Amino acid sequence: MHTAFERAEYEARLSELQRRMSDRGLDALVVSDPANMYYLTGYDGWSFYVPQAVIVVLGEDQPVWIGRAQDRNGAKLTTWLDDAHLESYPEAYVQQPDVHPMDVMADLLRRHGRASKTIGVEMDAYYYSARAHAHLTRHLPDARFEDATLLVNWQRIVKSPQEIAYMRTAAAIASQAMGVAAQAIAVGARECDAAAAIFQSQIAGLADKAGDYPAIVPLMPSRERTSASHLTWVDRHYTVGDTVNIELAGCYRRYHAPLSRTMALGRPSKQVEALAVAVAEGVNEALGSARPGATCADVEAAWRKTIARHGFVKESRVGYAVGIGYPPDWGEHTASLREGDGTVLSPGMTFHLMAGMWLDAGGLEISETVLVTETGCEALSDFHRGLVVKDS
Amino acid sequence: MHTAFERAEYEARLSELQRRMSDRGLDALVVSDPANMYYLTGYDGWSFYVPQAVIVVLGEDQPVWIGRAQDRNGAKLTTWLDDAHLESYPEAYVQQPDVHPMDVMADLLRRHGRASKTIGVEMDAYYYSARAHAHLTRHLPDARFEDATLLVNWQRIVKSPQEIAYMRTAAAIASQAMGVAAQAIAVGARECDAAAAIFQSQIAGLADKAGDYPAIVPLMPSRERTSASHLTWVDRHYTVGDTVNIELAGCYRRYHAPLSRTMALGRPSKQVEALAVAVAEGVNEALGSARPGATCADVEAAWRKTIARHGFVKESRVGYAVGIGYPPDWGEHTASLREGDGTVLSPGMTFHLMAGMWLDAGGLEISETVLVTETGCEALSDFHRGLVVKDS
Repeated sequence: MHTAFERAEYEARLSELQRRMSDRGLDALVVSDPANMYYLTGYDGWSFYVPQAVIVVLGEDQPVWIGRAQDRNGAKLTTWLDDAHLESYPEAYVQQPDVHPMDVMADLLRRHGRASKTIGVEMDAYYYSARAHAHLTRHLPDARFEDATLLVNWQRIVKSPQEIAYMRTAAAIASQAMGVAAQAIAVGARECDAAAAIFQSQIAGLADKAGDYPAIVPLMPSRERTSASHLTWVDRHYTVGDTVNIELAGCYRRYHAPLSRTMALGRPSKQVEALAVAVAEGVNEALGSARPGATCADVEAAWRKTIARHGFVKESRVGYAVGIGYPPDWGEHTASLREGDGTVLSPGMTFHLMAGMWLDAGGLEISETVLVTETGCEALSDFHRGLVVKDS
Repeated sequence: MHTAFERAEYEARLSELQRRMSDRGLDALVVSDPANMYYLTGYDGWSFYVPQAVIVVLGEDQPVWIGRAQDRNGAKLTTWLDDAHLESYPEAYVQQPDVHPMDVMADLLRRHGRASKTIGVEMDAYYYSARAHAHLTRHLPDARFEDATLLVNWQRIVKSPQEIAYMRTAAAIASQAMGVAAQAIAVGARECDAAAAIFQSQIAGLADKAGDYPAIVPLMPSRERTSASHLTWVDRHYTVGDTVNIELAGCYRRYHAPLSRTMALGRPSKQVEALAVAVAEGVNEALGSARPGATCADVEAAWRKTIARHGFVKESRVGYAVGIGYPPDWGEHTASLREGDGTVLSPGMTFHLMAGMWLDAGGLEISETVLVTETGCEALSDFHRGLVVKDS
């Protein structure tokens, strides 16, 4: 079998989605988010730089994949759909000022009898551009459009046993890559060479499990760049006194397990040490509070209370649901570990508990990918949970 | 200097853009495409998974960068803008169902006196979602919105001497990575280990020039997967008789030089050999035809005529303008080497001449990144232009 899941699991996902669509009064759904497309069909190709979609129609027993003609063979090779459910738009629609692939998708919806029905679209999904929406609505003037952003994403929040197995493999790859980072980041080494070693480890994966590309490259700012959350490496050699924030993920069959640590080259400053103690304690308290029945907000409160005792405040959320991802993000955009998020934890949910502090004078990160279990939660990676000090 | 270009080059870009905006009757422009944001300001962070923009106002001497609060330090560290031109939206706007970062951007435009003016937006840019547009327009009911997709992109098509120098470095990294691919792809090797070696080489870069992450991961389908254009590696070992299509890029300071080749492990089939001869000849003819004064369509015609003599037809375009890129694409989305594209070549333009053939029975790729010179054109990488046969 070339897909990551048995056909029955895809069929169950489709039925459940159709149930949710029905509850929302949707007759059809245009799924543009590549992670949702993968979830529903298995489609896996780097073709999301042109418009493409999985179209789910109420009452039909397979979704329809539609993309660029030259990518149709890719859909044939990676999805569970039969040939009749693979459509394409011709090359003449690619990056043109007058026509748009959404024109063809509108025709497809018309052929499926949905031209004057209620159609859900993912208004805020990556790759569903303002122009895509304008073309789709213009070509279906009698349809009613509903914003169905996150409809599929919310369905993804509880993972199946097979999904959890993939997350565990991803977490093992993440632990391994963090070990490589701890070796490669050293006084005198070039930042890019350390990054190259991390990539190598992520992609090679384990001896019997191929690594996949994570949705985000290793973020690894050093020195004053640790004050920012999303910077990569630069063209310099590490020196004594550097701190380096490393946020990376293992990825296996598109499932992600992110993991973050901060490294200090040489003796860390008192400020960094104090921050590390507070953050590690905060993460441990948050982990201790995560269990079925608790809410996302409860977990954040446990974290916030702990770091407040140390005199710290974090403005941004302390984590989010995680799983399937394509660039630019591995987050699921549903539940967040933050004040006011009443999502109740249940077994099979997976979160990236991300305790990143980006102070103006420098930052610090400790993060874990956690699985909510029957009785509590479990961190999936295995790596020393604290500041990684390297006395060189 | 932390930016990739002198301040004067950024200021010249800004002036030229304001001239183009004025021609189009735009009082302000919301730039969402990360490549355009980088071009105008130097901003370089993996934060495009949340809404962010560079806002250019007619008559102002700096653009405004606006993004998530935790990314503002990243803008401070990577752009040429002074502190007064770095804005942010608070965490409460991140991934919420009711509010959107575009609400804050609308306020910013209002403060700059553009609430009832003509505002350009990149309707079809990556990361400018349908919902982003809905929020921006709703919060500025008196403004007139114009689709300014590709306005900045077209300005990028002719490269400056410094940009060309970066493209040459990127091309050297691409040649090196293709050499690594030719070594690593071998009978018995795992596909993911070959991919890992390629990544390692791309990111390490050259001895004195750090590699950057390309906007697209190495595409390297093997066997029947070569019938599709955008597949990656899988969990298998190469075997005798495999062909592998490799499309990769070198990236330096966000400038890309893509390069593609097909490898045969063991003696290739007659069909693959014939296709390789036709494609290589087609690429050479296309290169021979590319010179100032010729159009993009002329180059495509030279290619098409040549492969037709060999009995082949390619539906898709044979290349496109290339340069700065962020995931998901390194293409500039302006000129394409295809029938009907009347763009006239001029010195300093750079294209990815991409002769990829994806036949149902398997495909073949040869591509080059080319620079239009005063008298003709130059392929920037240096790698045997033909089928790479590895008799194992």
